[in-house]
Amino acid sequence: MGEFELIERYFKRPERHTARLALGIGDDCALLPTQPGTQLAISCDMLVEGRHFVATTDAFKLGHKALAVNLSDLAACGARPLAFTLALALPRADEAWLAPFAQGLLALADAHGCELIGGDTTQGPLNICITVFGEVPVVNGRSQALLRSGAQGGDDLYVSGNLGDARLALEVFRGSVSVPQAVFNAARVRMETPSPRVALGLALRGIANAAIDVSDGLLGDLGHILKQSKVGATVDADLTTTLIAANAYYTRARGQFDINIAPEQWRAWALSGGDDYELLFSAPQAQRAAVAAAAQSSQTPVTRIGQIDAERGLRLVDAQGQPLPNTYTSFDHFA
Amino acid sequence: MGEFELIERYFKRPERHTARLALGIGDDCALLPTQPGTQLAISCDMLVEGRHFVATTDAFKLGHKALAVNLSDLAACGARPLAFTLALALPRADEAWLAPFAQGLLALADAHGCELIGGDTTQGPLNICITVFGEVPVVNGRSQALLRSGAQGGDDLYVSGNLGDARLALEVFRGSVSVPQAVFNAARVRMETPSPRVALGLALRGIANAAIDVSDGLLGDLGHILKQSKVGATVDADLTTTLIAANAYYTRARGQFDINIAPEQWRAWALSGGDDYELLFSAPQAQRAAVAAAAQSSQTPVTRIGQIDAERGLRLVDAQGQPLPNTYTSFDHFA
Repeated sequence: MGEFELIERYFKRPERHTARLALGIGDDCALLPTQPGTQLAISCDMLVEGRHFVATTDAFKLGHKALAVNLSDLAACGARPLAFTLALALPRADEAWLAPFAQGLLALADAHGCELIGGDTTQGPLNICITVFGEVPVVNGRSQALLRSGAQGGDDLYVSGNLGDARLALEVFRGSVSVPQAVFNAARVRMETPSPRVALGLALRGIANAAIDVSDGLLGDLGHILKQSKVGATVDADLTTTLIAANAYYTRARGQFDINIAPEQWRAWALSGGDDYELLFSAPQAQRAAVAAAAQSSQTPVTRIGQIDAERGLRLVDAQGQPLPNTYTSFDHFA
Repeated sequence: MGEFELIERYFKRPERHTARLALGIGDDCALLPTQPGTQLAISCDMLVEGRHFVATTDAFKLGHKALAVNLSDLAACGARPLAFTLALALPRADEAWLAPFAQGLLALADAHGCELIGGDTTQGPLNICITVFGEVPVVNGRSQALLRSGAQGGDDLYVSGNLGDARLALEVFRGSVSVPQAVFNAARVRMETPSPRVALGLALRGIANAAIDVSDGLLGDLGHILKQSKVGATVDADLTTTLIAANAYYTRARGQFDINIAPEQWRAWALSGGDDYELLFSAPQAQRAAVAAAAQSSQTPVTRIGQIDAERGLRLVDAQGQPLPNTYTSFDHFA
């Protein structure tokens, strides 16, 4: 099967999916109309076999995840998803892989009204590169985008959903830990099919002062906010550990199985596990009710895990407020 | 060197380079202001080592080419370059490679006022994925973009610049032909550092009826115009052969060296060589003076190589107007 036939068969959508667009796949460029009073938010992520996923990864789930990590960047800016391009290097034009990959990808795209408008396919080691486009309102000349640079001393610090589960699943795949099946299953969903927090990001416009998506680990990504906002933070490390969804299954299973993962290990996964795709954001204390309403309207759990300090530096404390050493490093795709 | 340090060092630009943009590299998304009365043209190309270039390719030239092939897509739409994202998978963070790669890439970007606004870097087999953004005016609700679908029976058919040289150089690299150094040098420049025809594309707005950039070979890309415009074409195959720049050097060298490349081989390179990054376009006969003026104002040579026919199908003729069989296949990145 040739390159063009391949694109046509799996990625060309019926007309109704490209109603908003002047032109989709099939010309030298896609043409994207722009709306007055908006700006475009653009993000780009590349997933490489052996680095971001293993060769045996289910193609449907991989299609989902490849777009999810990009939508997560839009969510962190409070941008409404519009469209995306897909560049794909494949060892061979394998229909048994392409069909489910496209299904997983396009199912998530449809759920977010985000249209595939162009791309490229070529032969090569498996590589998935997606560039995603979203829309942010500009009000009175001011962008409504959530940035990393807006955190203020005294802000509450929040994280959405769960932390650490993706890393736990990765460690099980790597064989470095062993857990009961139910624990693994809970963690694995988070690693393989993360839910980009798009609705929460939109709901937080005008409420949050700063936001980032947690992809390289909570503390590493918090570091970006602190650096760009020129502030510090205090984080309740024990509280973040309770956000590991698999932990509940694990605690239950401990009565039945002879398993043992040290509390310090859980804490490390929560604080620096990576691959979480949750939103980490700060908001003024006066906005607590508004944050709670945004969480509710977007049906996304949110936990207040600490605060932004005017004093630079990152301080970790335990449940009793006692200082903990910060020995956590963020995930680095070249480490 | 870590991922973030790497991005900072080689790809973060001084402020003046991002003057037009609300926000460049360093947040979850880049933010691109949009202008009233315009739409965005978007294209995406992925270059893979071993497929689009060899491991020994000069990094500066590769940086140039990676952006050039994307700018060529904007040119084919008549879009003015604005910005691009770069996703890069590298076997290792090799400064001796990264520095010249970034230089080659950014030199071409600066020449076209096209700003690097974001991207991703990761460890993996060498892969360069660029998504480029350009601007097209919308006049009275009508896009001024040049499309593949606008060719009309009776249109003149033109191609810019030279054809076939990149393929000749590739065949020399592959060892399938041998030519004198001067011939190879002339061809090699075209393969390694193509010049995207951005100025010509802009000058052809309102003049050309249809356009495409020649990346997979003249006839293959012409096929896209014919299919999408529901028309046919007649092409002077012998005339296209004269567009091989290296041919002149070769003809001169034949007196001095014992070399022999069959005319049919030259013709095949011109018609289906690939990697040319020229503009192939059609325009009404009444626009001949306007096309000549566009060629002159953009300092881009243009040759009329045939015509669009209302009757479907592609007809090749020789210099005497006699029919030639079409046995040429376009370059397929999965072939």
